Amino acid sequence: MHIDIQFLPFPPTPNLLSNRTVVVIDVLRATSVIVHAMSQGAKEIFPVKTVEEAFQKAKTFPRDMTLLGGERESQKIEGFDLGNSPREYIAGKVRGKRLIMTSTNGTKAFHSVTSAAEILVGSFFNISATAERGLKPGRDLLIFPSGDEENFSLEDTVCGGMLIDRIIKIGRRSITLTDASHSAYILYERFKANLVEAFRLSRHGKELIDRGHEEDLPYCAQIDMTNIVPVFKEGVIKI
Amino acid sequence: MHIDIQFLPFPPTPNLLSNRTVVVIDVLRATSVIVHAMSQGAKEIFPVKTVEEAFQKAKTFPRDMTLLGGERESQKIEGFDLGNSPREYIAGKVRGKRLIMTSTNGTKAFHSVTSAAEILVGSFFNISATAERGLKPGRDLLIFPSGDEENFSLEDTVCGGMLIDRIIKIGRRSITLTDASHSAYILYERFKANLVEAFRLSRHGKELIDRGHEEDLPYCAQIDMTNIVPVFKEGVIKI
Repeated sequence: MHIDIQFLPFPPTPNLLSNRTVVVIDVLRATSVIVHAMSQGAKEIFPVKTVEEAFQKAKTFPRDMTLLGGERESQKIEGFDLGNSPREYIAGKVRGKRLIMTSTNGTKAFHSVTSAAEILVGSFFNISATAERGLKPGRDLLIFPSGDEENFSLEDTVCGGMLIDRIIKIGRRSITLTDASHSAYILYERFKANLVEAFRLSRHGKELIDRGHEEDLPYCAQIDMTNIVPVFKEGVIKI
Repeated sequence: MHIDIQFLPFPPTPNLLSNRTVVVIDVLRATSVIVHAMSQGAKEIFPVKTVEEAFQKAKTFPRDMTLLGGERESQKIEGFDLGNSPREYIAGKVRGKRLIMTSTNGTKAFHSVTSAAEILVGSFFNISATAERGLKPGRDLLIFPSGDEENFSLEDTVCGGMLIDRIIKIGRRSITLTDASHSAYILYERFKANLVEAFRLSRHGKELIDRGHEEDLPYCAQIDMTNIVPVFKEGVIKI
């Protein structure tokens, strides 16, 4: 099984995706929010690229069963129900609801990899379950960090490295790594004893601290709080 | 001083380059060849993108003072004088000569960053001198690994990380790192005791071993064999 990671979040060529499982990762905070919300009983999540698209989409569903969530510049969007902290997405608010989400990096990433064989939502919250699910026979794996405004993102890469570590530890298939996925693994090794340190060193982590979201850092560093692995398919994320 | 590294070798936007020194790195083997050849007395080097362009360019110069060098698929090109091993580029062959070079990744990289304020040629051979030269007041630095056929290259990134280490050790300016340049520094830390290990783990290093160029690996890992820093300007590399 070949495991690659794409360090910059531009759309891969479709032929690179056709027989691959892709794991989209945006630990600070979009994929952490998605995994958290689904684990708390959200019914389905539509990741959309723009705020306008979110409002348009919301109009097509009954308002009382639909929540708008996400961020711009790390803050809740005007007129939205929820921001972009996983701590907001608790059962009391999201159970049985449909979410429409837009964020700066994470929700866009899903639309860059639509031609993949399967698209999984990864985070520290569900890292071991994602590793298990990514081990489908006959398929290679592409880890897709959603990046930091089109730049390389340390925290997503460390999470990608942990995914590789977990897949190696399951040990069911022989693994080949690329220069990039090997490097992600090394970066994970550097920070595995203190994931929050990677968050604090990252540009995006610093921005979250500056904007009052420091509590989200240790929260998003929690490992294996759930076994669910959401799947993005035909525009919508479900379990 | 801001230090960034671009992990994938696509052309940066010109406004990103305008006030930056760029260091192009292709340690296996184009920039190692260039630094080696210049240190052995080559007069100037024209890095060109294609084999055809190399032959065309050669016709415009006196044949006896001009050498064609480079590789395709890691092997010497038919009709060329020299391959792509720095060990071939010794004074007895190159002193006073003009070289026209083409390689799969390295020579192309120079043409991707032409709008930079200054373009330096970096390698392990001249790492400390490149660090010193890259510390120009008022300028930021972009490290540009030439990559491995448009993919991330471990060995070039480790060399970029060593460049950062040397700049930090000079200590003349305060340094800010991006997620990417910080990661390059961590990868250098991992391999600094054994640079050849990074070469052996890299896809391109493995290819060189498979194709009979194993001796180039320890050769290209030699640190500070020269103080020269070649500069690429208006299509040509000179000291």
